[in-house]
Amino acid sequence: MSVDTLADLLGGEMTPAALQEAAQLAAGLSDGEIVGLVERLSAARACVLLQTLDERRALAVFEALDAAHQAVLVDTLGEDAATDLFVAMDPDDRVSLLDELSPDLAEHFLAQLDPRERGLTSLVLGSPRQSIGRRMSPEVVSVPVTDTVDQALGRVRLRLHDAETVYTLPVVDESGVLVGVLGLRRLLATAPETPVADVMRPAESGVVTEDAERTARRFLDRKLLGMPIVDADRRLVGIVTVDDALAITEEADSQDVARQGGTEALRRPYLSTAVGDLVRSRIVWLLVLAVSAALTVQVLEIFEATLTEVVVLALFIPLLTGTGGNTGNQAATTITRALALGDVTPRDISRVLLREARVGALLGAVLGSLAFLIAGVIYGPQIGLVIGLTLLSVCTIAATVGGAMPIIAQKLRADPAVFSNPFISTFTDATGLVVYFLIARAVLHL
Amino acid sequence: MSVDTLADLLGGEMTPAALQEAAQLAAGLSDGEIVGLVERLSAARACVLLQTLDERRALAVFEALDAAHQAVLVDTLGEDAATDLFVAMDPDDRVSLLDELSPDLAEHFLAQLDPRERGLTSLVLGSPRQSIGRRMSPEVVSVPVTDTVDQALGRVRLRLHDAETVYTLPVVDESGVLVGVLGLRRLLATAPETPVADVMRPAESGVVTEDAERTARRFLDRKLLGMPIVDADRRLVGIVTVDDALAITEEADSQDVARQGGTEALRRPYLSTAVGDLVRSRIVWLLVLAVSAALTVQVLEIFEATLTEVVVLALFIPLLTGTGGNTGNQAATTITRALALGDVTPRDISRVLLREARVGALLGAVLGSLAFLIAGVIYGPQIGLVIGLTLLSVCTIAATVGGAMPIIAQKLRADPAVFSNPFISTFTDATGLVVYFLIARAVLHL
Repeated sequence: MSVDTLADLLGGEMTPAALQEAAQLAAGLSDGEIVGLVERLSAARACVLLQTLDERRALAVFEALDAAHQAVLVDTLGEDAATDLFVAMDPDDRVSLLDELSPDLAEHFLAQLDPRERGLTSLVLGSPRQSIGRRMSPEVVSVPVTDTVDQALGRVRLRLHDAETVYTLPVVDESGVLVGVLGLRRLLATAPETPVADVMRPAESGVVTEDAERTARRFLDRKLLGMPIVDADRRLVGIVTVDDALAITEEADSQDVARQGGTEALRRPYLSTAVGDLVRSRIVWLLVLAVSAALTVQVLEIFEATLTEVVVLALFIPLLTGTGGNTGNQAATTITRALALGDVTPRDISRVLLREARVGALLGAVLGSLAFLIAGVIYGPQIGLVIGLTLLSVCTIAATVGGAMPIIAQKLRADPAVFSNPFISTFTDATGLVVYFLIARAVLHL
Repeated sequence: MSVDTLADLLGGEMTPAALQEAAQLAAGLSDGEIVGLVERLSAARACVLLQTLDERRALAVFEALDAAHQAVLVDTLGEDAATDLFVAMDPDDRVSLLDELSPDLAEHFLAQLDPRERGLTSLVLGSPRQSIGRRMSPEVVSVPVTDTVDQALGRVRLRLHDAETVYTLPVVDESGVLVGVLGLRRLLATAPETPVADVMRPAESGVVTEDAERTARRFLDRKLLGMPIVDADRRLVGIVTVDDALAITEEADSQDVARQGGTEALRRPYLSTAVGDLVRSRIVWLLVLAVSAALTVQVLEIFEATLTEVVVLALFIPLLTGTGGNTGNQAATTITRALALGDVTPRDISRVLLREARVGALLGAVLGSLAFLIAGVIYGPQIGLVIGLTLLSVCTIAATVGGAMPIIAQKLRADPAVFSNPFISTFTDATGLVVYFLIARAVLHL
């Protein structure tokens, strides 16, 4: 494959001949393949690759990268090449990049823009961080509600070269207030003299200050191609398109997945992240979890006398804590996903808790009965009873707590994934041990 | 909120007056709000709601549901109402639903279609399950490469009412082979007499038998609006649009997330799934994990003499296994995500293993040193040394194994998430305990 050949070539020394060969190989690849390659190379190699591309292509590839990755490349590219790319970017992509740069560098770049581009960029920069306004494009084709279909088509023709999209056309009244939306397809299918007011649909719109992730999920849920963005007075200020919505949800998903696994999300693709940064993304959570796990040492110390008396109880500790953790994770994963898809809302908390308690009890009953039989045969009926009863209780508690955590997080306006799976495991470990030894003491009369 | 009012109304008795009120309330809601409500209702209530909607709306809402959910509603709706919906659906949505129905019912429904619709449906039905051909729309507008821009626009106008999309136009030669693609925007921006051959771009296309998920991810990665689908001879057979690609990846993500949490994905929204089905989605994995966890009981039994001699060793079991599990999960989560995003490929396995071993050793060094100091002060330097060395080894092993698992799964052409986090925890539990007691025996000279 020529992607691999190019990767190998870029790994070696960059003689003029090698550069020329690299340029030829790159010319034979699609934009997507080049992007994939850039994401796997170190910053220095990635910049060499970008410089072998023609201007249009370098821009397309650069715009396809995450902003944090772009910022790293800007440092390596050198000022002139970086400024050329920056000036040519779309206003919304430009703002995402600016957010990642030092204030000095951001100001320097902004000063290079012509007044019109600077105005468009400032419009986007003016919206709060994390808001959809930061991700919208101000280059929107709006259609006055007094237009005919023919006049509207005329406006579209004038903006074919610079607008973000011409497939979703917001319709506005004389004061710029959004009153509807019209697809280009519908426009083409309608007689030219028809008033726009007769064919427009109610607009699914977003407010400029609204949370970017929530708006993007709504966008994708409704299967839109474009969503008009309005200010507090419902005046049209921009538009969001599918690629924006996808970029926003992909970032959010990466963060959720990372949290669930107990790490911080990486800001750059894995192979181009330094080992030190990988360690940093994990050490904090690992320490927090280890400190919480120290709680289990304390719990066991309280029951040390029981343990010394019946050492066989120690054999089941990992089995019991493991099963509790697994049950809790199952519940947490299911509910976190249901929240993300909108299948469950925080309003449903009592229904969810009731269901999870029942599911946990049923799972615990199955596992507990089996454990009672098996452990009973091997270690005697008393030990069998202790293990069986503990599994029943632990599964019920773990499923209920695991199901509740993501909803509680959402109620507290935190990310449902903040109570990550490792966190739930650690919590159920400590609780499960207390339950275990209390049951053991009662059954074994210790 | 009127959504909640409607939900409460549907929860009560359905008198004719209540039905009329429900219809009025529903008329004031957006399609998206109705879909959200249907996903939270039992099948019987959902059908009552669907029947209060006008025909166009009922279809739009029904088409927005997952196929498995549609199939449940078909059973409840009754034959006549279900047939009306089925006949009005798009061919690709129809096929997804057919896959969920009994063969008898599927045949009955197919017999209700007129010959043209039956032909289109069969075309989609003919592709293998899991392939992109099953999800494409055969209603595609193709442009002969010999057309001028004006002629192409004429073809678009003829298909404005039935085509799946008119924004991405595949260009074909005289034998129907795909030779390029043209956006409607580009078409409108070009002089009418220009030959299509001069303005078309190379097409990013998919092959009808290709895996649906892989194709959909490529689609979204390249930020396309439509992707032509071709047969083995590169003849155009259909088109995939953004909504198809999103539906495919959402299903796949739900499955991945569920697997990572050690459950089967739910086939219906959480609140409309019966408790028994929730138990079934979890019990298999939980049993498998519990049986694997029985391994830890065996391991501890081998070292029971050591445990009896130094009971204090038991206190650290949950801490050590927990930390190993967490470190393994961090690595597995990171690599699974990197694989999904294409940042890492199976070809990179040696680079990944080397990085994860280094990351794990660094994490283990930090945690181990802390544990050595703290446990050393409380339980004496020898115990401190045992705990510290164990953490160092366990973290290194867990990170390496956790990073390797998803790649190995992918190499075996299995889902990277099949080695779920609970699986990795269970594996590292057993390994960690062996390491722990071996180190303890060596340090404590037992």
